[in-house]
Amino acid sequence: MTMEIRAAAQAWFEGLRDRLVAAFEQLEAESGAPLGPAGTADPAVDRAVAGRFRRRDWQRPGGGGGVTALLRGRLFEKAGINVSTVTGSFAPEFARQIPGAGEDGRFWASGISLVVHPLSPKIPSVHFNTRRIETAKGWFGGGADLTPIVADAADRDSFHAALQGACDRHGADYYVRFKKWCDEYFFLPHRNEPRGVGGIFFDYLESGDVAADFAFVRDVGETFLDNYPKIVRRHMAEPWSAEERAHQLQRRGRYVEFNLLYDRGTQFGLKTGGDTEAILMSLPPEVCWP
Amino acid sequence: MTMEIRAAAQAWFEGLRDRLVAAFEQLEAESGAPLGPAGTADPAVDRAVAGRFRRRDWQRPGGGGGVTALLRGRLFEKAGINVSTVTGSFAPEFARQIPGAGEDGRFWASGISLVVHPLSPKIPSVHFNTRRIETAKGWFGGGADLTPIVADAADRDSFHAALQGACDRHGADYYVRFKKWCDEYFFLPHRNEPRGVGGIFFDYLESGDVAADFAFVRDVGETFLDNYPKIVRRHMAEPWSAEERAHQLQRRGRYVEFNLLYDRGTQFGLKTGGDTEAILMSLPPEVCWP
Repeated sequence: MTMEIRAAAQAWFEGLRDRLVAAFEQLEAESGAPLGPAGTADPAVDRAVAGRFRRRDWQRPGGGGGVTALLRGRLFEKAGINVSTVTGSFAPEFARQIPGAGEDGRFWASGISLVVHPLSPKIPSVHFNTRRIETAKGWFGGGADLTPIVADAADRDSFHAALQGACDRHGADYYVRFKKWCDEYFFLPHRNEPRGVGGIFFDYLESGDVAADFAFVRDVGETFLDNYPKIVRRHMAEPWSAEERAHQLQRRGRYVEFNLLYDRGTQFGLKTGGDTEAILMSLPPEVCWP
Repeated sequence: MTMEIRAAAQAWFEGLRDRLVAAFEQLEAESGAPLGPAGTADPAVDRAVAGRFRRRDWQRPGGGGGVTALLRGRLFEKAGINVSTVTGSFAPEFARQIPGAGEDGRFWASGISLVVHPLSPKIPSVHFNTRRIETAKGWFGGGADLTPIVADAADRDSFHAALQGACDRHGADYYVRFKKWCDEYFFLPHRNEPRGVGGIFFDYLESGDVAADFAFVRDVGETFLDNYPKIVRRHMAEPWSAEERAHQLQRRGRYVEFNLLYDRGTQFGLKTGGDTEAILMSLPPEVCWP
């Protein structure tokens, strides 16, 4: 069963990545936005391939590797999708915190992680990831959360309703638990601020029925793939002001602060020899701390 | 003696702050740079007072407080100087790491911290700080380090020679020890890169002769006040290219990564209820992660 779920999970993450890549490139193609992010000071943007993902393979010295797909476009200032499948042994200080990691600390992990920073402050940034981790135990984790710059109740409600639908199809208490977990996780104590408007966050999902857990994880992926493009389309033709752009660059500072100060995946990845560029793919392309 | 050195240290830090403020405002006045940082997307910059520091008092809920002086100018895109004098009790998890903090964790601390991010990539960013901390023990700490964007051997040599002079006047082994400590401290393991070209870093300086230690700390301050403006004047009339500016914005990302992932003062301040804006004053005004 273990080898079967490993292969199935990895195949699912890679297939979902391909569909997300196609969906985001389609949105870029639909967009009437001017070619090239106006607010970007980086001349390295290759205008000729803006709007298409570029893939980079990387190997993890400890075992396994992944593919980082990165798009610099006219609608999405930066959109990154990582899929990785890695094996190795946790260092003793990590092994103690990981269920089932035991004496030797051996693990297998596969997952997909996506972060999108649109050029327009009217389109919310978003983060989505799902993963399978196996030690002597095995579980799923993941979630999705929305970070609007210009508040829009319809976006927030649509995002939460879609995720609630996915949760309700698989566990009566999933939405309440996973929404709360998300609110608690994506919080900046030093600012006394949430990172965004939340979504869901779950970890150590091991109900005893691995097929059911995997079905939930797939449903979260399908739901994200369906919902976020609708939010993008709702705003893609809206103009924005210089003040809204400046506000966006400041809010992106909060995103950086959260990811570098608190995010478990970032800290964990950087301290276990993960691919730095893949891990820090999540950081926004342009940021201000005024 | 303790009360005497406390009062003298605080008075020194505040007086040095006033002299640094005057020196940076003088440099702004000399600068022929266009008014307003061309690369800044932040419309909140108040052009009318660009080139002058604005001061903000803050109180620390646990005891004491400080003053943040911040300049947004045409030569210095962002220059910040904090002086704070605080008292309180370390939480038990911190007290264990602090010499002499003992059972009750009580401490007194006063210091000055400066971070400068020039608009021009030809002028290196710089960080300087010195502090006095007292528990059941009492010591000085501090240092200064340079972060060039466009490498310049003359700047690096001038900065190191000045600091070596200050060290050599007070301790035969100071420069070798404190330079090495700086190189080890300002290093990004996840990038396998130093943050800049170094300088000196020292902590727990408690030679047994508090007057001699204080004299060294004052000399480091005088040396910084004398040396860095010379480096600025050497480059203040030089033009720079869009490529150099883009490179600067990327290098500033490394500065953010170091400060949020590794800097002890930042982590310590944010986790002990310090003033968030004062602590994060160190972050550059505009940054790119391409």
